[in-house]
Amino acid sequence: MNWEDLAKELTQATPSKIILMVIDGLGGLPVNGQTELEAARHPNLDDLAKGSACGLTHPVYPGITPGSGPAHLSLFGYDPLRYQLGRGILEALGSGVDVGPQDLVARGNFATIKAGLITDRRAGRIATAECERLCARINAGLRQRAGTTISLFPGKEHRFVFKVSGPGLADGLTDADPQQEGRPPVPVLALAAEARRAAEVVNGFTADVTALLKDEPAANTVLMRGFSKFPAIPTMAEMFKIKPAALANYPMYKGLAKLVGMSVQSVGAESEDLFRGLEGCYRDFDFFYVHYKRTDSAGEDGHFEAKVKAIEEFDAFVPRLTGLKPDVLVVTSDHSTPALLKGHSWHPNPFLIYSKSALPGEVARFTERECGARGGLGRFPALQAMSLMLAHAGKLKKFGA
Amino acid sequence: MNWEDLAKELTQATPSKIILMVIDGLGGLPVNGQTELEAARHPNLDDLAKGSACGLTHPVYPGITPGSGPAHLSLFGYDPLRYQLGRGILEALGSGVDVGPQDLVARGNFATIKAGLITDRRAGRIATAECERLCARINAGLRQRAGTTISLFPGKEHRFVFKVSGPGLADGLTDADPQQEGRPPVPVLALAAEARRAAEVVNGFTADVTALLKDEPAANTVLMRGFSKFPAIPTMAEMFKIKPAALANYPMYKGLAKLVGMSVQSVGAESEDLFRGLEGCYRDFDFFYVHYKRTDSAGEDGHFEAKVKAIEEFDAFVPRLTGLKPDVLVVTSDHSTPALLKGHSWHPNPFLIYSKSALPGEVARFTERECGARGGLGRFPALQAMSLMLAHAGKLKKFGA
Repeated sequence: MNWEDLAKELTQATPSKIILMVIDGLGGLPVNGQTELEAARHPNLDDLAKGSACGLTHPVYPGITPGSGPAHLSLFGYDPLRYQLGRGILEALGSGVDVGPQDLVARGNFATIKAGLITDRRAGRIATAECERLCARINAGLRQRAGTTISLFPGKEHRFVFKVSGPGLADGLTDADPQQEGRPPVPVLALAAEARRAAEVVNGFTADVTALLKDEPAANTVLMRGFSKFPAIPTMAEMFKIKPAALANYPMYKGLAKLVGMSVQSVGAESEDLFRGLEGCYRDFDFFYVHYKRTDSAGEDGHFEAKVKAIEEFDAFVPRLTGLKPDVLVVTSDHSTPALLKGHSWHPNPFLIYSKSALPGEVARFTERECGARGGLGRFPALQAMSLMLAHAGKLKKFGA
Repeated sequence: MNWEDLAKELTQATPSKIILMVIDGLGGLPVNGQTELEAARHPNLDDLAKGSACGLTHPVYPGITPGSGPAHLSLFGYDPLRYQLGRGILEALGSGVDVGPQDLVARGNFATIKAGLITDRRAGRIATAECERLCARINAGLRQRAGTTISLFPGKEHRFVFKVSGPGLADGLTDADPQQEGRPPVPVLALAAEARRAAEVVNGFTADVTALLKDEPAANTVLMRGFSKFPAIPTMAEMFKIKPAALANYPMYKGLAKLVGMSVQSVGAESEDLFRGLEGCYRDFDFFYVHYKRTDSAGEDGHFEAKVKAIEEFDAFVPRLTGLKPDVLVVTSDHSTPALLKGHSWHPNPFLIYSKSALPGEVARFTERECGARGGLGRFPALQAMSLMLAHAGKLKKFGA
């Protein structure tokens, strides 16, 4: 018996409400002796933490640095080692491409081919505007083959997302990218019999698009890799008998929420829009995933001070969360993004759970070290956050008699 | 997907260097209120711990006391419940017997047989010199059967290591020891068809050696048990893409390092030789296992004060480790050996990891209780030490996107 089986057996629908507040990349490392959380002023988070059980969570496994996909799946209660997301689907989600169960997606590059050999895998890193023009040209001029619809979605420079919609398109395709210049393009191969039709469709598209672009000076073919379908993941409603909503400013997080069946709310681009959106839909759902991005962006850029400011900006919104009086409020992160490391890291996430049934620890401030040493919850896998939230919300029945 | 699969997928070779310093049997229990670590003066370890993330590791599972084999496999990143080492192979490693993939080894006793019955399973505990004479006599006088070579390696008193080399020798043999006196010796039996040839060879050897020794007054036969082969373990290079070296004074630890494919360096018998050896090979490898034995020996003897002194002796070498400026330095133990218990125990090991990406906790001294309560890392399985070391050394890529 594993967690999924337990969850299916023991969860029950109740009117109680849970807010899962994710401050992306929150955890950090000391610069001049203090982490970003230690250097920032965040009195609202500190007050909340004093009345909460606190701890530290491992996103996937100690020492493993997760991408956004596995880090979020853990927090949503899904084993990230069981549900692995293809590169294509993550690229599509990150680009805001709408992906459904009949769609096959991939990451694409525009490239240059001469006399049958790839001479530049990135077509000289064409400008983003040029990429947009080429995608529009292909979307308008491409001959659609029977039963399928292909669309390209421009990304930055030479990159795009490929999407083909239609029945019978399995994933399990090799990459169509020789990964080296001076070689001929490689056709995709089906790794299983059921992917043969998808392989034909993709190889047909590559031939069509190369014919269509033959007059282009640089970007006259495409290379595609990471073919993947919308993964077969049970929804949160099926797993946990909850009705979840997502509030996020960025496409990647909306996409991840959609993957697990959340109702993704339309919100604007500002941080404040998250909380206005939450207030607007609060009556209609019983689980709310709210995603705050600026901490991670500052950490990725290596801007310690900008991350401190992003934490302080976030802190001002805490009363908007507590003001709704949720039965359970969790504030945590998907992974750490120390400015010192300029990227995601494996360090565990500060975590607090506020509810009338939580046993507060002895933290004075909401920081990595206080959560770890005096929070009361110790260290645990982020995958266990969901059972704690459901338990504190009264949504988990007794196991055994 | 488990840790091994993750490791194979995510590890990458880098120039960064890791030192794993194992102080054997370091953890202890209080005598007059203080453990050996609490009673000892170790200012260098304390300074190192203040700048490190600290914690406690379980060698195998809480409450389980490990032998040296499983305790080291955990630290080397191998699940000790998956890779179990036979008694024969550990006896061989501990005696410094060189064992390769074609060798089958066992523990042996000289014994006394009269009128077909074992009258003394230990041949009156003959002197070690007598054991050496008998082994030499057998090695010189034994008729080697076609395709195999048998050698005996004398141990203490009546004990020896049996080794047979040759193709097609599988393990999976019952013991040849009746375990009780007044009974006839029992032939070994093959537990699977592929071990039949090995059973014939072993039983042939027992008959040959009994014939050879028929004129000996006490030690006129042998009893053998724990038949085992060099286990099928992937090397650390295969698992983690590292180039590991081992610095150890004692055969058991050299043997364990060889099992996982480390390059075992020749060092002298003194503690200082370990650090001179480390300095000498530091350019040529990127992972260094250094084994310090005296703490364990003192603990096994129940000599609290001797263990305190061994810790203090070790402390003086700490600057030799930090002086090399490794990217990651771990100081820990394989298992605890409290002088109070005069043997290995299940108590978790003090652990520190020093690196620029480590978040220091709040310890003032490197002791069991400070590491556990204020170290920042909490308690975790020793098996996770390897993923932490690799992460801090930048040798683990991101999981997922």
